[in-house]
Formats: sequence, structure tokens, C-alpha cells
Amino acid sequence: MSIEPFAATDVIAAKRDRKTLTDEQIDWVVDAYTRGVVADEQMSALAMAIFLNGMSRAEIARWTAAMIASGERMDFSSLSRPTADKHSTGGVGDKITLPLAPLVAACGVAVPQLSGRGLGHTGGTLDKLESIPGWRAALTNEEMLQQLDDVAAVICAAGSGLAPADKKLYALRDVTGTVECIPLIASSIMSKKIAEGTGALVLDVKTGSGAFMKAESDARELAETMVALGTDAGVHTVALLTEMGTPLGLTVGNALEVRESVEVLAGGGPADVVELTLALAREMLTAAGRGDVDPADALADGRAMDVWRRMIRAQDGDPDAPLPVAPATETITAADSGVLQRLDALSVGVAAWRLGAGRSRPGESVQATAGVELHAKPGDRVTAGQPLLTLHTETPERFGWAREALDGAWEIADAECDLRRVVIDRIG
Amino acid sequence: MSIEPFAATDVIAAKRDRKTLTDEQIDWVVDAYTRGVVADEQMSALAMAIFLNGMSRAEIARWTAAMIASGERMDFSSLSRPTADKHSTGGVGDKITLPLAPLVAACGVAVPQLSGRGLGHTGGTLDKLESIPGWRAALTNEEMLQQLDDVAAVICAAGSGLAPADKKLYALRDVTGTVECIPLIASSIMSKKIAEGTGALVLDVKTGSGAFMKAESDARELAETMVALGTDAGVHTVALLTEMGTPLGLTVGNALEVRESVEVLAGGGPADVVELTLALAREMLTAAGRGDVDPADALADGRAMDVWRRMIRAQDGDPDAPLPVAPATETITAADSGVLQRLDALSVGVAAWRLGAGRSRPGESVQATAGVELHAKPGDRVTAGQPLLTLHTETPERFGWAREALDGAWEIADAECDLRRVVIDRIG
Repeated sequence: MSIEPFAATDVIAAKRDRKTLTDEQIDWVVDAYTRGVVADEQMSALAMAIFLNGMSRAEIARWTAAMIASGERMDFSSLSRPTADKHSTGGVGDKITLPLAPLVAACGVAVPQLSGRGLGHTGGTLDKLESIPGWRAALTNEEMLQQLDDVAAVICAAGSGLAPADKKLYALRDVTGTVECIPLIASSIMSKKIAEGTGALVLDVKTGSGAFMKAESDARELAETMVALGTDAGVHTVALLTEMGTPLGLTVGNALEVRESVEVLAGGGPADVVELTLALAREMLTAAGRGDVDPADALADGRAMDVWRRMIRAQDGDPDAPLPVAPATETITAADSGVLQRLDALSVGVAAWRLGAGRSRPGESVQATAGVELHAKPGDRVTAGQPLLTLHTETPERFGWAREALDGAWEIADAECDLRRVVIDRIG
Repeated sequence: MSIEPFAATDVIAAKRDRKTLTDEQIDWVVDAYTRGVVADEQMSALAMAIFLNGMSRAEIARWTAAMIASGERMDFSSLSRPTADKHSTGGVGDKITLPLAPLVAACGVAVPQLSGRGLGHTGGTLDKLESIPGWRAALTNEEMLQQLDDVAAVICAAGSGLAPADKKLYALRDVTGTVECIPLIASSIMSKKIAEGTGALVLDVKTGSGAFMKAESDARELAETMVALGTDAGVHTVALLTEMGTPLGLTVGNALEVRESVEVLAGGGPADVVELTLALAREMLTAAGRGDVDPADALADGRAMDVWRRMIRAQDGDPDAPLPVAPATETITAADSGVLQRLDALSVGVAAWRLGAGRSRPGESVQATAGVELHAKPGDRVTAGQPLLTLHTETPERFGWAREALDGAWEIADAECDLRRVVIDRIG
């Protein structure tokens, strides 16, 4: 006889048979999985049943709470400033965190940005920052708090103490075909963000070919689910639904994206990156009670750049060191003249990944300099023979493989082109 | 980069997304699971996807073939007699294999009966026979062939060489809530039976509370699926759909069921056990090309009993040794007079299991003498105060727990009672 209050097979069978899991079942199964009493092969069967049969909002909220309860919670209440955090569901060329965190900090709100590494075609914020000589991602909780107090902005790796159940489940989902499931995605993201202890949270939920959620309806459902979870947990939460059919900005790759981020902090940079950075900054400031401050001023007058430099230095990076440059490049030119109709985000993301910017397996190293530079964006008029893309890599034998990914990735036609707005909707 | 032709996550995702698995995907995933390249947590996610999204007949056939290909195949073509085997999906009081194998052998058809042990409320043929002093379940393939040649009947444990993929998958399904799934049940049963090399196969597919498939429509679908699989594999296969809302015969438990089986072989025994034994014997003889022989003669003239005694002796059992008897019994009497309307098979099975006749986990030992004896069957007229059931056990502290299982298990009323036939339908 077991002393456990439930049998794993009964919990699995309940969800398999489309029943609603009870609070007690959810609390137990998440805790027992963290303890190793529920085995990986049982949790993966449950995850597949959740994938196919769904969870109610109440079940998702309880599941999230159970994952938070599996580990420690951080507490920023000792800080003199309010806190706000941003989470993006991931895209191609999405370097927004880099200019955004110092920008919001420059406006008086502390940004405790726990970030991750890239997997597959989407890049990771930590991978990008590691292309800055000396910069380190790992901070202790004490170092993080100290930096928030001193600089107001920190971007670092999440410690292993936050939501360990999520960490274990995330790795399991990755190998069992149970990743693209809104209840599990929403609870995974929100358990970490709520445990992190931020006072306000702005979600950048992307939709389009380069996004995790390709369909706008799925992205909207994910956004609504996460906003509800955050709000119920007492975090001021809002989501922007944003466009990811086209790469963000003009660079995709680690050092390439840092360079572009610094351009934005210097008051320049591509219009779409600036627009999304400011939109997210305004949401973060409003959610943190500083809706009266205009972040555009902090970009224009150099205060955001000052915070960036202090933030990089606080983590042993040298903001003045030159960024590494790829030893090999190849440029792809336009075959025709006309208006660039589309430039597919997923294709560009896969090309950058194949050039060495991303990893296939957790733990693999990435190339700091690999990636894709864009010379035109949809809506731009191009002339036959002009450069469209430049491929960067440390391993030139990958050029062919990257070019394959770009097959059919764009279209040039003598017609106007309907551009989607960067920010599609606001939820919350 | 892997040298495997597929990624497990792609195969899982295909079934998750309701696609039909290709032959190559099925062959690979079953083989790679047997090799340990596909992990348990991946196979359990796939099993849940199959559970919820199903498999086509063609997918089930390929899956079955892949499981057969994971191990050895037996070959009985050297025998002078044709072969026929029976498989029951399991029920309460289902001791039919015991009289059936020697009966069919007595009629000139060899019966290579690979059997299993009980789990949960259904008993196992090997557990029953082990209540005979000295009898052993484990035979080498050579011993099995020799006994088939000498005695024509053998009931023994399946060796580990047949369908090892099924053995591994069966254990996994048991702990991951993926047992009650027709494609996986059908392929599990049929892979072992086809690998075993029998020429003819009769399936006893049970329906009702004591059966694995409670609903008749599910049992019918399982029967049709298995008949198609056997036929496609060149095995003469037929199925009887039989009643399992009431226990079979008047005994449930290991030694108790052996006693009743010997009564049948002696020409007596309960009518329903005799009826089903003869019905299955006729199907086995017909499928093996001996439809001209009437098995009732071999029961009446003692030939079946002779084979039984030789079969038991060939496996070191003593057919003349007295069967063990439980040290403790309790009798439950009728509270009212009237006609017994029903006697629930599942409740009686659970009571016998709780008394010690069954096991909760593979590998647990069982009590030879524990079980339930029935003194009346549905349709019988009973008088208040007369014995209805006698509970047998070696651990009297279990009586209370067993009685709980019997709460509401029968009904006595002053009305006629519609009895279901033992054999509901024939498929194939």
C-alpha cells in the first residue's frame, strides 16, 4: 500500500477521460513529479492527455500555483523602485529585451529580467549578451538584488530554485512532443514570472511564421490565458499581440543583434525595433504606476544608454569593447526589381540557426558572430542586383545549408504591399 | 546529428496531430523502443496519443508486425497434429483454459497454450495451475515442443523471446493510464499469438462488468480488430463474444477454479462452464480442420480427463494430490427470498482479489486457496437465510475488506430474470 494520496494512473486516466482535475490531484501530481514519485513516463502521458483534452482556466491556475509552490519565490519588496518585467514568447530578431530593460530602468522602474538561452530557430537573450566580451549571465540572488538597487536593470539567468517542477517538465515536454500546448506553455511561463516576484509584467505574445504560435487565434488565447493567470496571482499583467511573420529589425544573430540594440539605445535603429521597444516600455511603466513618464525622452537624451553601460559593466562586460565580427560572409542579391512583398521570419531564423547562431540541443555552444543581416524589409523597393541579405558565419561550409533554408523566403513584385502593424492588439 | 532515420518527437507529433503513421515510422518506433533509443517517456506520450486519436486497421496491422519482428517466432510445423490456441480477454471465474486445452487435445488437435498471470480482479491461468502441488509453469521451447508431441496439450508461461517490444510496452501502459485502448490491446494480444506460431486461434472476447471491455460495442470492435489481424497474418482466427456480467461457474479463485475444472473434465461442472468450454472447443477444432469431431464425446468418455492428467504430470504436477483448502471461510446468506436477479462479476472478482487470490503488482505472490464460492446464480430461486456466497482466505483479517466489495453486488426480487446467453455472438 502506498502512502501517497493518489495513484498517478488515476490522475492520468481522469484527464484522458476529459474530466476536470481536482485541486488536490493537481497539487499532488506536480509535487510528486518534482519529488520523483510520479515518473517521467507518467508525466509525459499526462502531458499528452492535457495537450489533446485541454485544461480549464481554473485547472491552469492551480497547475501554475503548484509549480510555483515547488520552489522558492523571490521578493523585491525591499527595493526603493517598483518592478516590471517583460516576457516574449520568442521570435526571429527579437532583441527587444536588450534596449528595453535599461530604457525602463532609466525611467525609474526596476527591471529584474530573468532570461533564457535559445533553442531551435529562436535566439536567446543570454546568448546575445554573451557576445559582449566579459559579460556573465549567472548571478546569485544577492548579486541580482544588489544590481537592481544600484543600476535598476539586470538581465541574467534564472536560478534553479524558481519553479523546479517547470524546469523538469519543460525538459520532458521538449522530448515528448508536448511543447505546443497553451495550458502548459502559459503555466510554464507564468510560474517562473510569478515566482520571480515582479510587481508588473508585460507579455509580448508573437504570432506569425517565426513565432511559436503561428496562428493569431492561438496567440490570442495564450495571451488571454497568461494575463488571467498573472492578474489572479496579484501581478499587474498586460499582453501585446505582436507581428512575427517578418524578422524584427535588420539583424538576426547574437553579436549582430547586440549591435542593433546599441543603435536603438543611441537614438537610431530600425523603426520596428524602436516602435516595439517603446510600446513595451510604455506598458511596463504604466503597469508599474509610472504611466506619466515618456520613455522616448530617455532614448533621446542618452539616459537609457547610460543604464545599458552600467548594466553591462555590473556583470563584468565591457560596453566599449568591439563586438566580434564573423570571418566569413556571403551576400544574397535581389533577382528582380520591385517591392519586397514578404521576408519569411521562420526561414531567416532557420538560416541564422544553421549558420551557427543557435543550438540543436540544450548545452551546445553557439557562434557569437553567426547570423543574417537584412538589407531590405517588406514594403521596401529593391533593384535587381542589390544586396538583400548578408549571411555571417564562423563555419563557411554552412552557407549552402543556410541558403537552402532561405529558398522561397521572399517575393519581389511590382505591387504595393500590405504591411501588418508591429503591435496587433493589446490584451489586459 | 543522429543516425536514426526518424526523431521520436516527429512520430509522436504525427499521431498527436491525427496523422496516419507510415509503415517506416511504425517499424522504426517499435524497433527503437525495443533498443532503448526511444525512451519510456516518449513511448508513453505516443501511447496516449494513440489512445486518444486511434490507429487505422492498417496502422494496427503494421504495429503488430513490428512487435512480432522484435523477437523470435515459434514453429510448430514439425508436429504431426494441427495446432489451435485460445485467448480470453479475461474475466471473473474464467477457468475455461484448464478443461479446454486437454479436451481439444483429446480430439486430435495440439494446443500450445501460452498463458499469463493475473493482475487486478481477473485471475491468471498460471496462478490457478500452480495451486496443484508440484506443477511448474516455466518450460523451455524444447520441453514445450516435446510435450505437444507427447501429450498434445501444454499450458505454460510465455518465454521472454516472443514479442519483447510488447512485453516492454505492456509494462509501460500499465503505469501510464494507456491500457484500455483497442489498437494497443489488439496488437499486444495478436503479436504474441502470431509469434507463437499457432495455426488456428479462437478468441474469447468478454463483455460486461467483469470484463476488460465493459461495453459490448467496444468488445465487438476489439474482436473484429483481432480477427482481421490474425486472418491477415495467415492464422485461422475466429472470436466468440461472451458474457461477463456474472462470474463464470460457481468458483472464483485459484485452487477453487482447478477443482471446478476437474469436475467439468469428469463430465460434471456448472452448465455455463461446460457450454462455453464446448463452444470454444468446437471453434478450435473447426478452425484446425477437425470440425467433424464432437468434443462432448471426449468429455463424456473420459479422454479429456486422461489428457489433463498427463498434461499436469508432464509439468511435474500431481493430478491425484488433494488441492489446498483455505483455513478460514465465511458464508454470506440471502436476506430475502425470491429470484436472484444479478450477481455482479466485477464485485465478486474484486472480493476474490481482496481475499488474496490476486495481486496488486506484478511479482506479488497469490494465495492458492483464497476466493469466492457461489451457491446461487442469476435466475436461481433463493430463500431468506440460505447461503449465497462463501468467502475463502488464508488471511481472515481480509474478510471485512472483501465484504465491502460485495456491497450491492446482487439483487433478489420476486420477478423473473432475463438471463443473457453465455455466447453472445460469433465474429469471423
